[in-house]
Amino acid sequence: MLYTVVKKNMYQDSVNLMLLTNHLSQAEGVNQVSVMMGTPANKDIFKNSGLYTSELEDASPNDLCIVVDTGDESVVENVVKGVDEFINNQSTQSQQSAIPVTRTWEMSQNKMPNANLAVISIAGEHAASETNKALDRDLNVFLFSDNVSLEDEVQLKLKAQAKGLIVMGPDCGTGILHEVPIAFANVIEKGNIGIVGASGTGIQEITSIISRRGGGISHAIGTGGRDLSADVGAITAIRGLEALASDPETDVIAFVSKPPAPEVRDKVVGVFKNLGKPVVAVFMGEKPHEDHDNVHYAWTLEDTALKALELAENSGLNRIIHHDDVKKIKFNPEQRYIKGYYCGGTLALEAAMIVEEAFHIDPAADHPEGIMLKHEGTEIIDLGDDAYTQGRAHPMIDPSLRVDIVKEAAANPETAVILLDNVVGYGGHEDMAGVFAPVIKEAKERAEANNKALIFIASVTGTQGDPQVYENQVKTLEEAGAIVAKSNAQATRLAVDIIKYLNASDSTAKAYTEIAATSESDAVKELISGKPRVINVGLKGFAETIQENGGQVVQYQWAPIAGGNKRLARILEKLK
Amino acid sequence: MLYTVVKKNMYQDSVNLMLLTNHLSQAEGVNQVSVMMGTPANKDIFKNSGLYTSELEDASPNDLCIVVDTGDESVVENVVKGVDEFINNQSTQSQQSAIPVTRTWEMSQNKMPNANLAVISIAGEHAASETNKALDRDLNVFLFSDNVSLEDEVQLKLKAQAKGLIVMGPDCGTGILHEVPIAFANVIEKGNIGIVGASGTGIQEITSIISRRGGGISHAIGTGGRDLSADVGAITAIRGLEALASDPETDVIAFVSKPPAPEVRDKVVGVFKNLGKPVVAVFMGEKPHEDHDNVHYAWTLEDTALKALELAENSGLNRIIHHDDVKKIKFNPEQRYIKGYYCGGTLALEAAMIVEEAFHIDPAADHPEGIMLKHEGTEIIDLGDDAYTQGRAHPMIDPSLRVDIVKEAAANPETAVILLDNVVGYGGHEDMAGVFAPVIKEAKERAEANNKALIFIASVTGTQGDPQVYENQVKTLEEAGAIVAKSNAQATRLAVDIIKYLNASDSTAKAYTEIAATSESDAVKELISGKPRVINVGLKGFAETIQENGGQVVQYQWAPIAGGNKRLARILEKLK
Repeated sequence: MLYTVVKKNMYQDSVNLMLLTNHLSQAEGVNQVSVMMGTPANKDIFKNSGLYTSELEDASPNDLCIVVDTGDESVVENVVKGVDEFINNQSTQSQQSAIPVTRTWEMSQNKMPNANLAVISIAGEHAASETNKALDRDLNVFLFSDNVSLEDEVQLKLKAQAKGLIVMGPDCGTGILHEVPIAFANVIEKGNIGIVGASGTGIQEITSIISRRGGGISHAIGTGGRDLSADVGAITAIRGLEALASDPETDVIAFVSKPPAPEVRDKVVGVFKNLGKPVVAVFMGEKPHEDHDNVHYAWTLEDTALKALELAENSGLNRIIHHDDVKKIKFNPEQRYIKGYYCGGTLALEAAMIVEEAFHIDPAADHPEGIMLKHEGTEIIDLGDDAYTQGRAHPMIDPSLRVDIVKEAAANPETAVILLDNVVGYGGHEDMAGVFAPVIKEAKERAEANNKALIFIASVTGTQGDPQVYENQVKTLEEAGAIVAKSNAQATRLAVDIIKYLNASDSTAKAYTEIAATSESDAVKELISGKPRVINVGLKGFAETIQENGGQVVQYQWAPIAGGNKRLARILEKLK
Repeated sequence: MLYTVVKKNMYQDSVNLMLLTNHLSQAEGVNQVSVMMGTPANKDIFKNSGLYTSELEDASPNDLCIVVDTGDESVVENVVKGVDEFINNQSTQSQQSAIPVTRTWEMSQNKMPNANLAVISIAGEHAASETNKALDRDLNVFLFSDNVSLEDEVQLKLKAQAKGLIVMGPDCGTGILHEVPIAFANVIEKGNIGIVGASGTGIQEITSIISRRGGGISHAIGTGGRDLSADVGAITAIRGLEALASDPETDVIAFVSKPPAPEVRDKVVGVFKNLGKPVVAVFMGEKPHEDHDNVHYAWTLEDTALKALELAENSGLNRIIHHDDVKKIKFNPEQRYIKGYYCGGTLALEAAMIVEEAFHIDPAADHPEGIMLKHEGTEIIDLGDDAYTQGRAHPMIDPSLRVDIVKEAAANPETAVILLDNVVGYGGHEDMAGVFAPVIKEAKERAEANNKALIFIASVTGTQGDPQVYENQVKTLEEAGAIVAKSNAQATRLAVDIIKYLNASDSTAKAYTEIAATSESDAVKELISGKPRVINVGLKGFAETIQENGGQVVQYQWAPIAGGNKRLARILEKLK
């Protein structure tokens, strides 16, 4: 049987009420329940779901309507009690989280004068108007609400663009700004991959896969699903891409959307090409195009995550330009060469191969005395070659010869980077990192004493289960001042990147270090330069999430003007 | 000053003595030390390293020669004490490890009648002869020793081949057989990637990267560096590949070597194509070729590991043929369709896209009511579409509608696989897996009661840091009987693989299930069917590693006939 309770003049947000309905549905004895404001549209929904009663007829858009289908009248009381509790919880300030609650934009900005983002999750019919108000107050907007017209979306985004702001959304389900999850988002490791996406669950799948596989995210910027339509013209996507291009935390950019309108596609791909960072793009449902310039195309969300991970791990740029030692070496034009001394023959070959390709050096036909590469001052030598093991154990076991050679290379004025492998596991030396740590430390200290610097890059071949324990070896080397890459290939690529940077002309080198400054300086850049300071308009849960993750937040307990009576609201707006 | 001690008639293996020398070098007061047998070659080494003394002149190949360079005569005594201790430790049975020690092949096989592998690490000049003896005794051989002639290598490998055995090596640095590391190897997670490699550190780098990134290795089979030469013709590589092809634990095969002789290359690539499993090949230093058939080419060791990982995760074949439910559904020709019900719009689109491609279905131009795909009995629906959220929260929050639809699909006689996403994180349902677990369990139980089966495949979008905790959601779904894939793309591909298998004609299906039986049945296959049972000839450390990791082992404390006097040894051999 259906029971109806109408609470007059008690406006609640529709998204809130859906959550409440869902919660109440699970109560004992409830066959079906619905709690909605008494708008004409909602009355139709009551009718369609078989929950309409004559008592709803006179309900106004400002009245809260509860209809319960139950065989037990006493259940109704519990439901109403549940509704009351929920509403009280919404409107009072929670002691635990201590999020300030306000009732106007002005109060909100008084509470947080340096707010830089409004998160808006109120019912769609009111969302555009409140977004306009936020933009007028120079706030970026994350617009979770759906049911915003395309016309409104274009107007809002153009306005934001003119003011140097960004509107993420409408219908923007997810975002991550400086480790702070916005709306529906996952707790993701911090890292160097930035995401721009016109798809909420697409962003969630990509960021989750990256995080579970040991990578991390700088920021994830949602655009709303229609941003790449011909009407909107990717305004938000482009603003997001440019912000990530100028963000020093972002090394690689991933982009996800459905295939855009052709002219918008050209525009966006044109932007990709000028970002100065590698881009992995997935246009869902479209077969990947051939990679070109700095742009890589993927087919699935997982492919996108994996490709971005690969690029992120191999992207030494940020590490390089932030490394003081590299800057020091830059000023000493003598130091321009890589010296690699290996125990692993194939690892030495791999390093030689990567260096040869990077500097267009023809590979040698054979490798006498384990010399895998010798070109100008660069050399990569396999010390496991027979030439070095006569009467002496393999360098994986006996590090003495390699120690001597490394010391010599460190004293060589042309050496910029020393590359080392460290093959652990059964049979290998019990603590190779421990043997080289003092060698590395002393060499670096000696360089420093001469106001110079020296870079050591190592990789460890092994696992946590090995007797030497992978992480212990990594830690020992890092504490001695070496950079430890995740593989020999990555170690070598990093060495190559450093040499390329060192050899670059001053102007190019300047470009390297100033990529962070190429993009326009605007409010979006400021937004992602630290944890967001948020005015949350709507779902209180979003405010709690933001606060839990270190963002600042004010809860603007919004209610529509004139209790949702549209005609009256318009008149009141005009009277202001 | 140089001090010399010669111990008459005390043969020790040269590799052992290198380890000993390395150990003694680190002692206080020792400038340099060398401990070697008094062979003519070793005397040259003493000379080259400035450690030759006149007392060495009369030393025979069976005499242990110790030369110490020190300023402190008392140090010499300590060195000699160290040598004695080391030698005693080599020859007595360690109480701790309780590895039986023997002195002949016969004694060794008496101790372990079912031995299936000899690991040989004695000096190269004796290695070929002992390998021949092992092959005569029907043992596979892992030949760590180097300095074995190419002629001997060819003879040994042809002999092994004729007997259905394998010789890994000579100069084989590493191997992993059923989680047991042989010689220089890492402790690697067990998994479905098998490796064949002509490079020790190449195998170590690939297996370590795979293991550190969450994948695992079935077996790693070393071939020795010359196996792919024109003379040897890849005898061991091919035997290894075929053994992995027939191994039910191996889904993907990785292959590493230097570029082989052209004719050997053709032969090996021909073998790749007929293995019935995906192969990732890296010919170090050669630019990757275009992928063809089941063969993928990589450039670096890391690329090889990553590509193998990707293929391994997407390789559903083994899981499918071992899944009883799939076998049951195979016998019920009605059940041939995938039903996918999604909260995530882009995840639903991704699933539709993968299914369309797999079955050559034209994508629909638009998706009314969130129907991303509907073709015969297959359907994939985005329940987050507006059509399903009128007056109801999004299915990421309110699972009730999806529960009803899944129950209906489970009751539908044409359903074989139900695909589900589970998007967790802030904003999402607090325990979506907990809601679906009883639904999945009941549906599977009902199917079973009717002597039928039903497959649920899910993926979880989220991380360990999320409020719902990724692993907890995975566990709940798995305990309910669902298969949980590592991404939505993988979940969908697995569903596709299952349907392809179900639709395959009986003979094709038979081929699927019998891949494991296509390869010749021989001793190599037996070798990798369980933990190896080893006679270890040489370095005792190898025996300890094998035992520590669950292999059975006998230590054959080998010494050369006639104390290393070659002429006498040859006479004695002939007299036998």
